[in-house]
Amino acid sequence: MPIGTQGSVKAIEPRELVEIGAQIILGNTYHLYLRPGMDVMEAAGGLHRFAGWKKPLLTDSGGYQVFSLTDLRTIEEEGVTFRSHLDGSEHLFTPESVVRMQRQLGSDIMMVFDECAPFPCDVAYAQRSNAMTVRWAARCREEFTRTTHLYGYTQTLFGIVQGSVYKEIREQSVRDLVAMDFDGYALGGLAVGESDEVMYEITDFCEAMLPATKPRYLMGVGKPENLLESIARGMDMFDCVLPTRNGRNAALFTRTGELNMRNLSTKFDFSPVDPECSCYTCKNFSRGYLRHLFQVKEILGLQLATIHNLFFYLQLMREARQAILEQRFQSWKNATLEQLQSKVVAS
Amino acid sequence: MPIGTQGSVKAIEPRELVEIGAQIILGNTYHLYLRPGMDVMEAAGGLHRFAGWKKPLLTDSGGYQVFSLTDLRTIEEEGVTFRSHLDGSEHLFTPESVVRMQRQLGSDIMMVFDECAPFPCDVAYAQRSNAMTVRWAARCREEFTRTTHLYGYTQTLFGIVQGSVYKEIREQSVRDLVAMDFDGYALGGLAVGESDEVMYEITDFCEAMLPATKPRYLMGVGKPENLLESIARGMDMFDCVLPTRNGRNAALFTRTGELNMRNLSTKFDFSPVDPECSCYTCKNFSRGYLRHLFQVKEILGLQLATIHNLFFYLQLMREARQAILEQRFQSWKNATLEQLQSKVVAS
Repeated sequence: MPIGTQGSVKAIEPRELVEIGAQIILGNTYHLYLRPGMDVMEAAGGLHRFAGWKKPLLTDSGGYQVFSLTDLRTIEEEGVTFRSHLDGSEHLFTPESVVRMQRQLGSDIMMVFDECAPFPCDVAYAQRSNAMTVRWAARCREEFTRTTHLYGYTQTLFGIVQGSVYKEIREQSVRDLVAMDFDGYALGGLAVGESDEVMYEITDFCEAMLPATKPRYLMGVGKPENLLESIARGMDMFDCVLPTRNGRNAALFTRTGELNMRNLSTKFDFSPVDPECSCYTCKNFSRGYLRHLFQVKEILGLQLATIHNLFFYLQLMREARQAILEQRFQSWKNATLEQLQSKVVAS
Repeated sequence: MPIGTQGSVKAIEPRELVEIGAQIILGNTYHLYLRPGMDVMEAAGGLHRFAGWKKPLLTDSGGYQVFSLTDLRTIEEEGVTFRSHLDGSEHLFTPESVVRMQRQLGSDIMMVFDECAPFPCDVAYAQRSNAMTVRWAARCREEFTRTTHLYGYTQTLFGIVQGSVYKEIREQSVRDLVAMDFDGYALGGLAVGESDEVMYEITDFCEAMLPATKPRYLMGVGKPENLLESIARGMDMFDCVLPTRNGRNAALFTRTGELNMRNLSTKFDFSPVDPECSCYTCKNFSRGYLRHLFQVKEILGLQLATIHNLFFYLQLMREARQAILEQRFQSWKNATLEQLQSKVVAS
């Protein structure tokens, strides 16, 4: 899922997201609450209409952003009081207010308000934090039932499994959330600094307990190889800023590794970024041209890199789906991982 | 003609330029000489192939840029020695080298190397400056004849009329250039600080002496009303950074005046930028959304504003052409000017 934090996936137009096959994008409750504000969102008829996005939308609850304001927030049972990173003004987010804001945003998938525990954190903190996250999940679930959609289409609510790297807490979290019967389940608190091995182990552990009929969303992941390994472990949905952020930093993904367009080696290289790619960028422009655009700081460089990197990720996911349907995922995954790590073009 | 100084029209893709009906764009010899360099341009097969632009290209000679480096350049009969604005390195542009570089760029329309005299400038300076510009035009004309195109298609060369606000010098300039038989004639040294009235007077004066069968290009102009008044005076081609630069500054053109998207009045305004406009931006997004994008500094704001403003200019030119063909230009112009100045939306 491409990330559109502030109501726009950076440097790409909605029609281009459709063109490259994006089925769903993200918005962020914290950022949209601060600007343009929920009054504007509701007056506009929700984020879909405001941003001209007709396909599904998922909204983060804002928990991750609020908790990352380490020096600016106070956590209490009621919710989190925080100061805006923009003007220092004071605000309170509660599980209930976060659900109501996502009603105003009109997202197709709403997320519960959770604490994403820092890494590393000791078992006592993880225990306390998850217990509160579970109580907040229950309050979100209740508010979700108590309220209704505002714009004529139904919305869904996902729970978020926490518990840091502690299996006993993860197990409790999964049990408690599954009992609340959410529309889908996310794994939170991963890809926050732990090793890939630990991330895969926790993913495996939680997956085994999640209902097979509900979507599983691994939050904040990740590199192409992380996605393939996580799909192998039963994950269905991902969000990550890597394709867009790296693209704006001139790092382009290819099937044989990442290629930085600022490399001098691309100066006289008039071949496409990835000869195997069929995106607008690769079909019409060269590495040498992209290098020039980044060197002279032309906005078009950001646009073309974003188109390519998102296409790359979405194409990888399309191929994974097809391989699953054709029952050849494992061999496709192994071959693709080997290719991704060959780094032929990254010389 | 949208301006693509460094080989890219800022914040818009080539396919979008085609979509909004751009028939020709500009590149700049000075900027492309410094970055990526003429070795890259020739290795790429010219600017068309480098930038993925299949329609006509016009290249500025770089004279305007070189002369604006006031403290960094020395003018002599041979040419101009200047220091790069990027790293202070020393370079020499001559009429001959400027033609040869435009051969390397492969532009469909090349411009002679001229001095755009500052405004105001006294008659003695204007006289001397234009005399040299005419001698340089002859040297460009000669180099153009002596050399040939590099990429399998022919190129053309335009002369540039100078002479500041002095009719006797302008007259001499036109006579000398017309005698050299260029493919088209540009009026330079206008829109540099003089009043609109003076600009129109000089345009009128020069136009009467220019051959009716060759295109006339009024350089660096201008606002929508300037374009209409100049078309009325027989001008055919224009280039200006206004639509792109103003767009990136949140100023959007509409048929009833300019509208700044940062105005608080647009916060809850979910109508299109210009209800009469059929561009991608106006068909899909609102003033309120554009305001938000500019407020949170999203790149998409620059993209959507650029698409709209360039579409606005090109649409105005399409309507002007149609009105000329249907012999109703004068009445169309008067009605359009009145509408442009009503500023209903700029409240």
